[in-house]
Amino acid sequence: MKILVLGGDGFCGWPTSLYLSKAGHEVVIVDNLSRRQIDVLLEVHSLTPIASIHQRLAAWEKITNKTISYVELDVAQEYDKLVELIKTAQPDAVVHFAEQRSAPYSMKTPKTKRYTIDNNVNATHNLLCALVEAGSDAHIVHLGSMGVYGYGWSGSAPIPEGYLPVKLDTPDGELVREILHPANPGSVYHLSKTLDQLMFAFYAKNDQLRITDLHQGIVWGTQTDETLLDEALINRFDYDGDYGTVLNRFLMEAAINHPLTVHGSGGQTRAFIHIRDTVRCIELALTNPPKSGDKPKIFNQMTETYTVKQLAELIAKLTQAKIEYVPNPRKEDDKNDLVVENQQFLALGLQPTTLSEGLLDEIEQIAKKYADRIDQTKIPARSIWNKTLKASQR
Amino acid sequence: MKILVLGGDGFCGWPTSLYLSKAGHEVVIVDNLSRRQIDVLLEVHSLTPIASIHQRLAAWEKITNKTISYVELDVAQEYDKLVELIKTAQPDAVVHFAEQRSAPYSMKTPKTKRYTIDNNVNATHNLLCALVEAGSDAHIVHLGSMGVYGYGWSGSAPIPEGYLPVKLDTPDGELVREILHPANPGSVYHLSKTLDQLMFAFYAKNDQLRITDLHQGIVWGTQTDETLLDEALINRFDYDGDYGTVLNRFLMEAAINHPLTVHGSGGQTRAFIHIRDTVRCIELALTNPPKSGDKPKIFNQMTETYTVKQLAELIAKLTQAKIEYVPNPRKEDDKNDLVVENQQFLALGLQPTTLSEGLLDEIEQIAKKYADRIDQTKIPARSIWNKTLKASQR
Repeated sequence: MKILVLGGDGFCGWPTSLYLSKAGHEVVIVDNLSRRQIDVLLEVHSLTPIASIHQRLAAWEKITNKTISYVELDVAQEYDKLVELIKTAQPDAVVHFAEQRSAPYSMKTPKTKRYTIDNNVNATHNLLCALVEAGSDAHIVHLGSMGVYGYGWSGSAPIPEGYLPVKLDTPDGELVREILHPANPGSVYHLSKTLDQLMFAFYAKNDQLRITDLHQGIVWGTQTDETLLDEALINRFDYDGDYGTVLNRFLMEAAINHPLTVHGSGGQTRAFIHIRDTVRCIELALTNPPKSGDKPKIFNQMTETYTVKQLAELIAKLTQAKIEYVPNPRKEDDKNDLVVENQQFLALGLQPTTLSEGLLDEIEQIAKKYADRIDQTKIPARSIWNKTLKASQR
Repeated sequence: MKILVLGGDGFCGWPTSLYLSKAGHEVVIVDNLSRRQIDVLLEVHSLTPIASIHQRLAAWEKITNKTISYVELDVAQEYDKLVELIKTAQPDAVVHFAEQRSAPYSMKTPKTKRYTIDNNVNATHNLLCALVEAGSDAHIVHLGSMGVYGYGWSGSAPIPEGYLPVKLDTPDGELVREILHPANPGSVYHLSKTLDQLMFAFYAKNDQLRITDLHQGIVWGTQTDETLLDEALINRFDYDGDYGTVLNRFLMEAAINHPLTVHGSGGQTRAFIHIRDTVRCIELALTNPPKSGDKPKIFNQMTETYTVKQLAELIAKLTQAKIEYVPNPRKEDDKNDLVVENQQFLALGLQPTTLSEGLLDEIEQIAKKYADRIDQTKIPARSIWNKTLKASQR
C-alpha cells in the first residue's frame, strides 16, 4: 500500500511510519515539524534525545534498507501543495495525525485555543476537500480521541464504538435510531475532535469518501520494536505540564524522587493503550477499510482503564514514590466510571501490552535512563481550564 | 442594551440593526463587507439598489436622529481588534451573523468550501474566545439554521427546538437523556452551523458563556418597516443561483416571464420565515437570555412549511407563470416531510407574516419594480453537490 502519514514526525506518527515501512508499505511522511516548534516556544524538549527528521530517515534506511520519504508541508495552510501531492503520489491511504494534540496546551491561552481549532479543523477539512478535488479514493485513517465521548454520560452502559442506538417517541410509536455518540468534550482539543467527526460524516455521505476514525485513549510507552533498532530512531517522551500525559508526569516525578502529584482525588477513570498497540491498530484499520458509501468506521483504540489514583499507586509500588494530592486545574468531574467497548480491534487480533507488564520497562529504560535531561520546573501542569479555577488556584 | 451586530451590513444583519436601533438599543455594526465582495467576485448584484454602509448609516441618522456606529473588522481574522472592541464597547449582547450563509456557494469550488469552514468556524470561535479573554458576560445570539437537523430523521415526530429526549438501554435499565439533536447537514454551509453548535455547548459548559442559537428557516421578503423609510435603507434581494433562495428564484423567473424551475419533483418540504419576523425573533431572543451556566438556548426560527412544488404553485397562481421541472444539483432526498416545533417564539408573542398574505407585495414591490436590473444569466443554480451529480448533469 502507498500511505501518506500526515504528522509522521510526531509521537504517534513516527513509530507508525516505521511500523508501516517495516511491514512493506511505501510510506511518505508529511509534516511541518510543528510539534518540535511548540517545544521551542514552551522551552521544553523531549526527555529522550530525538534526532532530526532527516537523521531519523537516514538511520532507518541504513538499518533496514527501506526508504521513507519526507515532504515538509503544513496541511492546514498549504492546500494547493496538498492537492498536488495527492495527485502525484496517488496514495491508497492517508493516516491523519496532523493535529495539535494536547488538551492542556489547547486551554493555555487564547492563542493556543485559537491555534488548536484553526489548525485541527482546517487540516482535516483541507484533507477531505483535497481528496475530493484530486478524485482520490484514498482511505483516511484519522486519530480521534476517547475524549469525544466525555465521561459518565451513558450511565452503566459501556461506551460504544462511535455509534449508539437510541429510542425516540413519535406519534407513530417508538423509533430506533443509531446516532453518532453525543459529543461531550472536556477541552478545546477534544472539541476539535468532535468537529472532525461531523466533517467526516458529511464527506462520507456527500462524496462517498472512505474514512476510519480511531478514538484513542491515553498513549503510554515510548519505544516500539522499530524505534528500538537505533538510538537515532528513538521516539519522543514528553514530560512537561502540557504535552506530558498524567502517566509520564508520574514517571518523571518518581525518577527524581518527587511525590506523584494526583489532581483532585484521582477518581477520574481514563483509558490507556501502549504505543506498540497504537501502531498495530493503525495497520489493522488500514487493512480493514470501510466501503465507499459507508458512514465513517469508528474504533475505540484503547486496551485497559485505570483511575488516576490506581495508576499512581501502581507506579508508587514499583518505585517507592509517595503520592501527593493537589488541586485539579481542569474542569472535570472528580470521579467517574468508564467502561469502553473495544471488541473490534480484539476481534482483528490485537494482543494488548498491559500497564502492569510494561511499566517497569518504561521506568528503567526511559525515565531513569534519561533522568539527567529533565528540567524539573517543566513538570507541573500549569494550563488552567477557566477563570473560576484560575481564581481558586491563585 | 448595547449590542454589537457582527455581519450587520448583510441581508439579515442590516434590518436587524435598524430594528434594534429603532427599539432604543445602542447598536454597533461590525462587518468586513464580505457579502458585497463576494457579489463582485460572482459578478452579480442585489436586485434592489443597496446603498453603501456609510450612506445607509447617514440616511438612518437623518431620518430617525438615531446613530448606529460601524466598525470595519474581519471577525474570523482580526482577533486582537475584536478583543479590544469588546473591552472598549462593553456590550450587553452580540448578535452573530458573521458567517458565509449560502449553501450552493459553500459547494461551488474547493476554495468556497474551504472559505466557508475556515471563516465560519474561526468567526464563531474567535467570538467565544474573545468574550472569555475580555471577561465579558455579553449574551451571544447566533443565527443557526434549520439545516442542522436534516430532514426526515425523526420519523413523524416534529423537530424539537434543539434538544431531543432519547432513551438508551443500560445494564441498569432504560436511561432517558436529552441530547443535542443529531447533526444531519446537507451542505458544507450547514455543516459549519453544526460545528458552531458544538463550540457553543463547550463554551457554555466550560466558561459559563450565555448563548442563544436560532435555527432559522429560509428567509423571504425584503423590506421591514425600517428599511422602507427611505430608498437608501433598502435591504438586499439576491436572485443569483448561489445566494438567491428558491423563493427568490421563482419570483425573478415570474418577473421575466420564464417558467419557474423546480429542482427534481419539488417534493422537498422547507421551513420559511419573513424577514420582518426574523428581526422580531432576534429582539425576543435578546430580551430572553439564558442564565450563566445554562446550556445554549435554542429556538426554531420559522413560521410555516411549504414543499417547493407548493411554493411554485402559489407563485404561479399569483403571476400566471408556468412550472418547469429540472434536474436537482443538490444531493438530497427528492421528497421529505417536515414538522417543526416553534412554540417558544409564539409563546413570546411572535405574530407571523404568512407567504399567502405577503408574497404579492414581494412580487409587485420588489421583483417587478426592479426587474430592469436583472442579469438573467445569473438566475440558474450552477453549484453542484458532488462529482456523481456533476457527471449526470453534463
